[in-house]
Amino acid sequence: MEIEKKSQVEEEEQIVTPWEVAAEKGGKIDYDKLIDRFGCQRLDQSLIDRVARLTRRPPHVLLRRGVFFAHRDFSDVLDAYERGEKFYLYTGRGPSSEALHLGHLVPFMFTKYLQEAFKVPLVIQLTDDEKCMWKNLSVEESQRLARENAKDIIACGFDVSRTFIFSDFDYVGGSFYKNMVKIAKCVTYNKVVGIFGFSGEDHIGKVSFPPVQAAPSFPSSFPHLFSGKDNLRCLIPCAIDQDPYFRMTRDVAPRLGYHKPALIESSFFPALQGETGKMSASDPTSAIYVTDSAKDIKNKINRYAFSGGQDSIENHRKYGANLEVDIPIKYLGFFLDDDAELEHIRTEYGAGRMLTGEVKKRLVEVLTELVERHRRARATVTDEMVDAFMAVRPLPNMFS
Amino acid sequence: MEIEKKSQVEEEEQIVTPWEVAAEKGGKIDYDKLIDRFGCQRLDQSLIDRVARLTRRPPHVLLRRGVFFAHRDFSDVLDAYERGEKFYLYTGRGPSSEALHLGHLVPFMFTKYLQEAFKVPLVIQLTDDEKCMWKNLSVEESQRLARENAKDIIACGFDVSRTFIFSDFDYVGGSFYKNMVKIAKCVTYNKVVGIFGFSGEDHIGKVSFPPVQAAPSFPSSFPHLFSGKDNLRCLIPCAIDQDPYFRMTRDVAPRLGYHKPALIESSFFPALQGETGKMSASDPTSAIYVTDSAKDIKNKINRYAFSGGQDSIENHRKYGANLEVDIPIKYLGFFLDDDAELEHIRTEYGAGRMLTGEVKKRLVEVLTELVERHRRARATVTDEMVDAFMAVRPLPNMFS
Repeated sequence: MEIEKKSQVEEEEQIVTPWEVAAEKGGKIDYDKLIDRFGCQRLDQSLIDRVARLTRRPPHVLLRRGVFFAHRDFSDVLDAYERGEKFYLYTGRGPSSEALHLGHLVPFMFTKYLQEAFKVPLVIQLTDDEKCMWKNLSVEESQRLARENAKDIIACGFDVSRTFIFSDFDYVGGSFYKNMVKIAKCVTYNKVVGIFGFSGEDHIGKVSFPPVQAAPSFPSSFPHLFSGKDNLRCLIPCAIDQDPYFRMTRDVAPRLGYHKPALIESSFFPALQGETGKMSASDPTSAIYVTDSAKDIKNKINRYAFSGGQDSIENHRKYGANLEVDIPIKYLGFFLDDDAELEHIRTEYGAGRMLTGEVKKRLVEVLTELVERHRRARATVTDEMVDAFMAVRPLPNMFS
Repeated sequence: MEIEKKSQVEEEEQIVTPWEVAAEKGGKIDYDKLIDRFGCQRLDQSLIDRVARLTRRPPHVLLRRGVFFAHRDFSDVLDAYERGEKFYLYTGRGPSSEALHLGHLVPFMFTKYLQEAFKVPLVIQLTDDEKCMWKNLSVEESQRLARENAKDIIACGFDVSRTFIFSDFDYVGGSFYKNMVKIAKCVTYNKVVGIFGFSGEDHIGKVSFPPVQAAPSFPSSFPHLFSGKDNLRCLIPCAIDQDPYFRMTRDVAPRLGYHKPALIESSFFPALQGETGKMSASDPTSAIYVTDSAKDIKNKINRYAFSGGQDSIENHRKYGANLEVDIPIKYLGFFLDDDAELEHIRTEYGAGRMLTGEVKKRLVEVLTELVERHRRARATVTDEMVDAFMAVRPLPNMFS
């Protein structure tokens, strides 16, 4: 009895939903527990090796460092790919803020790699309807943010000949709406309460939304791309907090005659203050934004990035840094592509021979370069390019 | 305590929702009680006289006979009309069956009169999505029925230069979808449960649907018709079982900056077997269909139309017919336009000088003519005409 109670409390303390991510009090997100609770699979080394072999290129840094750490049926997608059957990628973003932070870029950087490596089409959903309903945004402001965010997404380097970006307010209708209705028919209110935890006081827009995020998992939602290809598989790269939507979608898929969408899921990009959740767009000191200047980045890293180093140089030399809690090391793990250099830093820092200041200096360089590169790329994205990516059009060479 | 309990039971026994209409056991629908419970207003003689004056034509038979008996804010619409402000009409149909029965025609016959009399535009929603979700119909079958039903609706004589017919599967999207989202944001799950009585085991498609039926009440859902006319009033002729949708809509309207839609509401067209509810499309002997032959009509009226006449000619001559329960008299009240003739029949029949067989004979003539006329009109409705009514297009002369 006592034990049951305790485990229930623990369960309650770690919260991961599409709208809230919070670790147990004072702790980190327990990803093993999450895999167990959600019922997805760990992405192991043999799968990573298989991706490298099939794509004939080294696995992406976010894959080999275990940032993308869980999956559902990814091996089935690779089996099919090996037999010569292509698939399509689906990812998305809820446009709730003007400026993206580094955590927002993670799924897009990874998706771009998957698109290039597998040479497959990609659909990107901007859920302006969701943000209009969840945040108190007007339709117009949600749509404006969707277009602004589309520019950041395009700046990640997606191939316009294989990529369709759409906003729900623009695109919902026709075949997409038909799939929304078909999906909604298969899901009871009790079911969505179980998955998403809605209450009776929540508005019905929230209850209506899950089918909108589910619909892009089925190829018939995009007749201009996949007409006659109802059998095409879908692979969804996303952060693991989106898993509830796709658990629901996978439940429904066979009843509608589609493959269950496969997933490849990432952990959360930690806040500067430490790894207790996702970065928060509402707390500017918790995150590095793609709009931050070199000076902002230097300042934020030096002032806020939680250090695993010891409190005095003497102790640091003696005991070394605690890499498990050190945010600069975590961030380098996401963005420093050079395995040897990262290993060297980890060894020297962990042994106390390298100081926090030195590690932070290297991180500032890496992030400044990344952010500067993003900013330059974004500056070249014109409204015409946004229109081109968002045009409802066939993509004749999307698989080649 | 005892009394409260009893009134609750009575409340439970008369059921009027968009999906179920049932009188108290053995009784008739109590429309006075319904007006009280729903909180709408009785449509009195002074309003009918006002309609006649404003439109400079006699009020429609369905208006002067009290078939359309209740309203919400209809007088506000007339006030505005008198000031020179036009409005638009909105009605609809859930396409769940191939053939319409006479009860289905009632709102369309009346709407056609309103359109002609007031010279206003009209939008007609075919809720194929609703029927796909409520009945177990495929998307394709719901769409096919929507088009078939559109032909029957067009056959009622609507003016293509003032009428836009749309199916939800075709038309949901864009401005219409934006209004759906805005409406959904304003309505909690508890609220729709209170209004529509959904349970947790109902699928979320049902919970998502009310905003779809609400959206046409706002002019901005039709930018091709009412762009820049957000202040345009909407008048909805419908059977009173649809009131719950529009109570919800009226609640939401001011928060979105629109006029509350006004309503003009009819009682139900009774089944042949008697006035305990609506006719049922699933029981062919309960209704006259627009596809019935003259022989079918004669047969159904003679065999099934519930008579208020006495059980023997002697008693009938002595006591006269009970007009309150007599279905032929009710039906003549809907469809026999000649007031003097109806009054004559009522007097003679009520006094026992006219027999049930004679009244039924006259009813068969009236209905046969109506159904034959409808069938001839429907036979001339081509697919091109359906396309024309359903095309998303401006209607430049819709107010003139």
